[in-house]
Amino acid sequence: MDQMKIVIQKYGGTSVESTDKIISVSKRIRQYIENQYSVVVVVSAMGNSTNTLVKLAYEISNNPSKREMDMLLSTGEQISISLLALALHEIGIDAISYTGSQVKVITDDNFSNAKIQSISTDKILNSLKQNKVVIVAGFQGIDMQDNITTLGRGGSDTSAVALAAVLGARECEIYTDVDGIYTADPRITKNTKKLKEISYEEMLELSRLGAKVLHSRAVEFAKKYNIILHVRSSFSYDEGTLVMNRKEIMEKFVIRGVTSKVDEAKVTIRDIPDKPGIASKLFNKLGKNKIYVNMIVQSTGHDGIASISFTILKKDLQDTLKYCEELKTEFKASNIDYKNDIAIVSAIGVGMLSSYGVAGRMFNVLSKNNINIEMISTSEIGISCVIESHHAELATTLIHNEFID
Amino acid sequence: MDQMKIVIQKYGGTSVESTDKIISVSKRIRQYIENQYSVVVVVSAMGNSTNTLVKLAYEISNNPSKREMDMLLSTGEQISISLLALALHEIGIDAISYTGSQVKVITDDNFSNAKIQSISTDKILNSLKQNKVVIVAGFQGIDMQDNITTLGRGGSDTSAVALAAVLGARECEIYTDVDGIYTADPRITKNTKKLKEISYEEMLELSRLGAKVLHSRAVEFAKKYNIILHVRSSFSYDEGTLVMNRKEIMEKFVIRGVTSKVDEAKVTIRDIPDKPGIASKLFNKLGKNKIYVNMIVQSTGHDGIASISFTILKKDLQDTLKYCEELKTEFKASNIDYKNDIAIVSAIGVGMLSSYGVAGRMFNVLSKNNINIEMISTSEIGISCVIESHHAELATTLIHNEFID
Repeated sequence: MDQMKIVIQKYGGTSVESTDKIISVSKRIRQYIENQYSVVVVVSAMGNSTNTLVKLAYEISNNPSKREMDMLLSTGEQISISLLALALHEIGIDAISYTGSQVKVITDDNFSNAKIQSISTDKILNSLKQNKVVIVAGFQGIDMQDNITTLGRGGSDTSAVALAAVLGARECEIYTDVDGIYTADPRITKNTKKLKEISYEEMLELSRLGAKVLHSRAVEFAKKYNIILHVRSSFSYDEGTLVMNRKEIMEKFVIRGVTSKVDEAKVTIRDIPDKPGIASKLFNKLGKNKIYVNMIVQSTGHDGIASISFTILKKDLQDTLKYCEELKTEFKASNIDYKNDIAIVSAIGVGMLSSYGVAGRMFNVLSKNNINIEMISTSEIGISCVIESHHAELATTLIHNEFID
Repeated sequence: MDQMKIVIQKYGGTSVESTDKIISVSKRIRQYIENQYSVVVVVSAMGNSTNTLVKLAYEISNNPSKREMDMLLSTGEQISISLLALALHEIGIDAISYTGSQVKVITDDNFSNAKIQSISTDKILNSLKQNKVVIVAGFQGIDMQDNITTLGRGGSDTSAVALAAVLGARECEIYTDVDGIYTADPRITKNTKKLKEISYEEMLELSRLGAKVLHSRAVEFAKKYNIILHVRSSFSYDEGTLVMNRKEIMEKFVIRGVTSKVDEAKVTIRDIPDKPGIASKLFNKLGKNKIYVNMIVQSTGHDGIASISFTILKKDLQDTLKYCEELKTEFKASNIDYKNDIAIVSAIGVGMLSSYGVAGRMFNVLSKNNINIEMISTSEIGISCVIESHHAELATTLIHNEFID
C-alpha cells in the first residue's frame, strides 16, 4: 500500500455528456491503470442532465425545497458513476462506483450549498487494494442525519480535491472542455496564451473576477492542502495548466491573466461626512442582507465631505438602492446614484508585486484609447478598473497585449 | 401515536409518468390527510424512465454488472419521490422523501432481484409524528455492505407491502392504470367483470398464469402478514379489487378468473422406461440450469413405457432441448419433440374445490368448439389446458362465458 501511486481525476459534465464520451473517458483511465496508477475518479452529471431535472422541479414548484432539490439533483451523478463503471468493465478494467453517502462524504446541512466536513477512506482504500478503479459521485454528500446534500456550483471539483486531500494524493486532474487556463478569454482576445502554471492566489482572483473554469471553493481547498490541480481537456492528451503553490512556479509573467466582468452595477453615495463608522454601517447592512459587494472606493473631497462607490451584482441593485435610501438621512447624504452599464476589467499576477509601473502602464493604455476609468481598486496581486461596459472587450485586449506577447 | 391511522399507498410508473400526473397524485394524497390519515407513499420511477436508463447502459455494455445496474436504476425512484414531495409542498402539505438507504430497507445481496430482510421504522414514524407525508422510494434497498440493490420486477409493490407489514397497517393501496382485477383480460374477452374481492391464492395463480397487475412476491408478502391489497386506478375514485384472506371473502364465484399465456413451448420425451428417478433427474437438471418449468404431465402407456411432456418459456427452448438430448441415451428415449405454437388457458377459483363438474364443463365447452386439449393439469384452485395458440382468445372467452355471467 505504501507504494500505491494514487491519482484523482475529475471529469466534468461535458466530458461524460454521452455514452460515447463515457467510453472515451474509460479508455483514458485505462492508460493510467497500465502505468500502475491507482485511480480514483470523480464524475459530474451527464451534460445538461442537471438542467433537465431542475426544469422538472420547476414544472411543479417555483420555490422548491432545498432538501428535495438535493435529493433530486444527486441522481445525476449517480447515473454517470454507474455508466462509467460499466464502460470500464467493458474494456476489462475492474471498477466500482460509490455515491457520496456510501463513502460517507459528511457535510453540514446547508442544502444546495453544503460544505464537506469529512470523508471516510475505508471503502475507497479497500477497493483500490483490490485493484479496482474507484468512481465517486461528485457534488454530493450527506449530513449528520443521512439527508442527501449537494455542494453547490463547482461542487464536483471540490469533491475531487477533498478526496485528494484525504487520500494524500499530490495532484488532482480536473478534466473539462477547455485545455487549460488562458491569459484571457480566447473567444474575446486574440494571441492569448495557455499558462503552464498559475498560483492558487491568482486562480482565486481569476475565478472571483469572472473566469468560470474552476470554482473558488475547490481552489481554496487545494491551497489549504497543497494539492496541485491539473486543469486539462478530456478531448486531448496535451498537458493543461497546473494550479499550484506560487513558490514552485517557474514560468515568469508580470501578468498572468486579464478578465472582464459585466454582471455588476456601481452605486455611489455622495456628500457624506467623512467620519468613522459610516462605511462600516453601510457594508454591515448589505452583508447581513446577503448582498455581495465586490469593489469599494472611498474618496475624500474638501471640507471633510466624502463619497463612497461600490459594485454589487446587477440582480441585487434594487435591494441595494432600497437599503441605501434607508440610511440616507442618517448619513446626511446628498444623493445616491447608480450605473448599470459598467464592466470591471482586471489584470492579475503575483509578478506585479515585484514590478514597478504595472498600474501606470495599464491606466496609460486605456487613456490613450479614450477609455475612461471610473473606479480603481488594487489588491496584492491584481488591479481592477471600472469602465463603461461597451469598452469591455477592447480594454481586455489592450491590457492583455500590453503585458503578454 | 396509538390512534394513528396509517395508510400505505403505492403509485406505479404510469401514475407518476409526468409532472401533471405527480400533481394529481399529490391532490389524492391531500384527501387522505384531510381525513386524518397518516400517509406513507411508495412510488415507482416515472413512466418509461427505467427503460431509458436500461437503454443507456446497453449502449455501453451487453452484459452490465448487476451491482452497477442497481446503482443506475435506483435513481429513477429517487427522482419521483423528490418531485412528489415538491408537489405536496406546493399544495401546503408537509412531506419528506426517503431513499431505500435512508430508511434502511436491508436486503440480501442478490443484485437486480434482492429480497427485503428488514426495514427501520424510526425515521418514518418520526416524520409521521411531525405530520409529514412520508414518501419512500420503491424497488430499492441496500445490502449489509451499503451497496444499493433493487428488488426485481414488481419490486415497488413489494416495498409497499413490506412497509405496511413493519408499520402494522391493515391495508395497502396499489394504484395503477387499471381499476382492479377482472375475470379475464377485457381487451380480449367481452362481458368481463371487475372483482370486488379475490383471495391471495387466486391472485398468485393469476399472476403465475399471465396476469401482470401484481407481482407474485408482493402477494406472497401480503398473504404472510395478512395485509389487504387494494388494487385501484389512480385516474378515478372508484373502489378497485381487494386481495385478501379467502375466509373473509363475501363475493361468490365458482371461477374468479380466466387467463391465457402464449409465451411457453411444450417439450415431449417419448418412450422412456416407466421407472423411478427419470423425472427427478430431468427436472433437477433443468432446475440447476435455471430453466423454469410450468406444467408437467407424465403418461404411462402399455408395457411400462411412458412419456413426459412439460412446458417451459419459449426463450429457454433451445437450451432445454440441448439438456434433454444429453439425457436421451441414458433415458433410452425414442424421441424428443417440441411444439412452439401453444397457449395455456387456465380457469382459477377457490370455489372449484366445492363445486363438482367444473373440469368437465370446461373440457366440454372446448371440445364442442373443436379445440383440442393437448395437456391438462389441475391444482387446488385451478385447471390449465394446453391448446394450439391460435385458439387462445376464443378458448378464453368460451370458458369465461361458461362460468361467469
